[in-house]
Amino acid sequence: MRELELNELRALAIGAGVLGTGGGNHPHLELLCAQSDYRRGRRVRLMAADELADDARVAVVCIMGAPMVTKERLPEPQSICRAVRLMEAHTGRPFDAVMSIEIGGENAFFAMLVGMELGLPVIDADTMGRAFPEAQMASFAIRGLPVAPFAIADIRDNEILIVKAECATRVERIGRQVVVELGSIAGTCTAPRSGADVKAHAILGSVSRAIAIGQAIEAARTAGSDPVKALIEKVGAALLFTGTVKDVSRRTIGGFVRGQVVITGSADDKGHELTIEFQNEFSVARRDGRLMASVPDLVSVLDEENAEAIGAEVIRYGQRVVVVALAADPIMRSAEGLCVVGPRAFGYDFDFCPFEELAR
Amino acid sequence: MRELELNELRALAIGAGVLGTGGGNHPHLELLCAQSDYRRGRRVRLMAADELADDARVAVVCIMGAPMVTKERLPEPQSICRAVRLMEAHTGRPFDAVMSIEIGGENAFFAMLVGMELGLPVIDADTMGRAFPEAQMASFAIRGLPVAPFAIADIRDNEILIVKAECATRVERIGRQVVVELGSIAGTCTAPRSGADVKAHAILGSVSRAIAIGQAIEAARTAGSDPVKALIEKVGAALLFTGTVKDVSRRTIGGFVRGQVVITGSADDKGHELTIEFQNEFSVARRDGRLMASVPDLVSVLDEENAEAIGAEVIRYGQRVVVVALAADPIMRSAEGLCVVGPRAFGYDFDFCPFEELAR
Repeated sequence: MRELELNELRALAIGAGVLGTGGGNHPHLELLCAQSDYRRGRRVRLMAADELADDARVAVVCIMGAPMVTKERLPEPQSICRAVRLMEAHTGRPFDAVMSIEIGGENAFFAMLVGMELGLPVIDADTMGRAFPEAQMASFAIRGLPVAPFAIADIRDNEILIVKAECATRVERIGRQVVVELGSIAGTCTAPRSGADVKAHAILGSVSRAIAIGQAIEAARTAGSDPVKALIEKVGAALLFTGTVKDVSRRTIGGFVRGQVVITGSADDKGHELTIEFQNEFSVARRDGRLMASVPDLVSVLDEENAEAIGAEVIRYGQRVVVVALAADPIMRSAEGLCVVGPRAFGYDFDFCPFEELAR
Repeated sequence: MRELELNELRALAIGAGVLGTGGGNHPHLELLCAQSDYRRGRRVRLMAADELADDARVAVVCIMGAPMVTKERLPEPQSICRAVRLMEAHTGRPFDAVMSIEIGGENAFFAMLVGMELGLPVIDADTMGRAFPEAQMASFAIRGLPVAPFAIADIRDNEILIVKAECATRVERIGRQVVVELGSIAGTCTAPRSGADVKAHAILGSVSRAIAIGQAIEAARTAGSDPVKALIEKVGAALLFTGTVKDVSRRTIGGFVRGQVVITGSADDKGHELTIEFQNEFSVARRDGRLMASVPDLVSVLDEENAEAIGAEVIRYGQRVVVVALAADPIMRSAEGLCVVGPRAFGYDFDFCPFEELAR
């Protein structure tokens, strides 16, 4: 267990942006909140999963809703804290720690804010290793642990418990309907996980990984060297494409943002075109029609200059970008994982192939 | 407390149809279920509210969803029973009796089926004195009792608790979204009511009233006299119009059936026209454009021959009908009631006037 330093928060925001793969919302406002907490003397206590007792109780938390709403209403951890308290009341047992359902995007920060608010350590782990749009796309659910009971709360006086559900996808769907009714934003707490479950089925070390990504990018910026190159060399990202955004089509369907980005190549990619489809997150990248990377692998679009991640909701014509790929966690690339987060789970008619094999 | 006799079930079905005011679904299939239970030796024990101890716990139950679904899937009380058990587990206290949220339509019968399934008496009362489309349109909510906690369960393995809500309407809206996700049908159990609450705030004697309506109609049918006339003379219904259905426009919007019926007059109404608008239930009746009756008063359309109630979902061109009005319960006609169930609550730009005053 160690306290995160103030400058690690900024690195975490950069790294969570990259791991957000276009979705999950850039945690800019959440970073400001966390910095404000630090000025008030609060600290994030980051705890490795192997420090957890096997019977410890971990609250897996997130903000569920439409990303744009979190830009209209300032972020607050209270709704998640209420969901955590609701789960404690329902199960009759307190939690020992919190962790985020996803390390990508703003939810990486909400776990920190909730940990500071409740005085609980934050586990250095998540359940996606990136951002995904739906609650069943989590390592615990992939490994067969029930998602229910599932607690939902908002900043008004609404508290909902999905006590039981026939499957993880039903929890997601019921939860999504409830959240839409609550104004498309609410705090949630998934079924309590034991320390043993976290150690066996979570994606471990992902907070540290996000911080390392941010630190590599920041160090290159400070040194005046290429931050994208630093990302490739230090974190193992693969360069997919360099170019300029030529076209974006985007529509909101059923609470999700869907569409595609077309990028015209420059430098080594001059004369070529990259198309990226997105379903909240970037899901599939094709170079001149040829598959380059797909879910569950991570496709991130970065500003060419400073390697800041660009979200699917804000990417626009004329931006000069670099597209990189990162390997998904082995849980996500496993057969059981691909059933839930592979291309077919996103409606594509092809099987997953790791991006490093596609590059050959 | 007394056992309902087999022939009272049939009368109850007829009466619940009339009090359903076009909505709430005719309880034909539920009657068959109840008769089947009687053949298996089960009995409905009807209990007057004043027999309840002040601290008795009463489960207020109903099926929530789209009426048409209950015609596609055979009725079953199990989903409501699961909602009742869920509420008992949540509150830690068992129930002593059940009652229906509404006496109009099939929910009148579901309370009977649940009472037989759980071995609990059924209170001779409801919270609407008719059928209404939404959960907050109930006497307990009108009197300010919270609707949450509110339990929802289906026949699969889904159980949802709205633990707290900012207001009764929010419970309705969250519940409606959940029920739509569950296939537009689920069993529900409202916040437990004490015996004292039931005595003070429920609409008392409504099961007996429905049976009396059914018995008056059945007796006239058997005697070969006019059942509509019996309804008017014995139950205090007022004749609004006699005629033939000339036109029906009907559409499903946001989970509700809306539209209007145009009836061309015959007999004393020859040369005149009655228009009835409906929002699940018949809400407003106008004769040649002049207001005759509106919510919360009851407008029922009956078959001219046998006085069987005709629902808004099944009424069709060419039917020869009689339209009657019945006075709403004083709770519904009170100032606090009209805020929730008056014309303005249904989107009309006029104030309520009792149908008997409009007739002058």
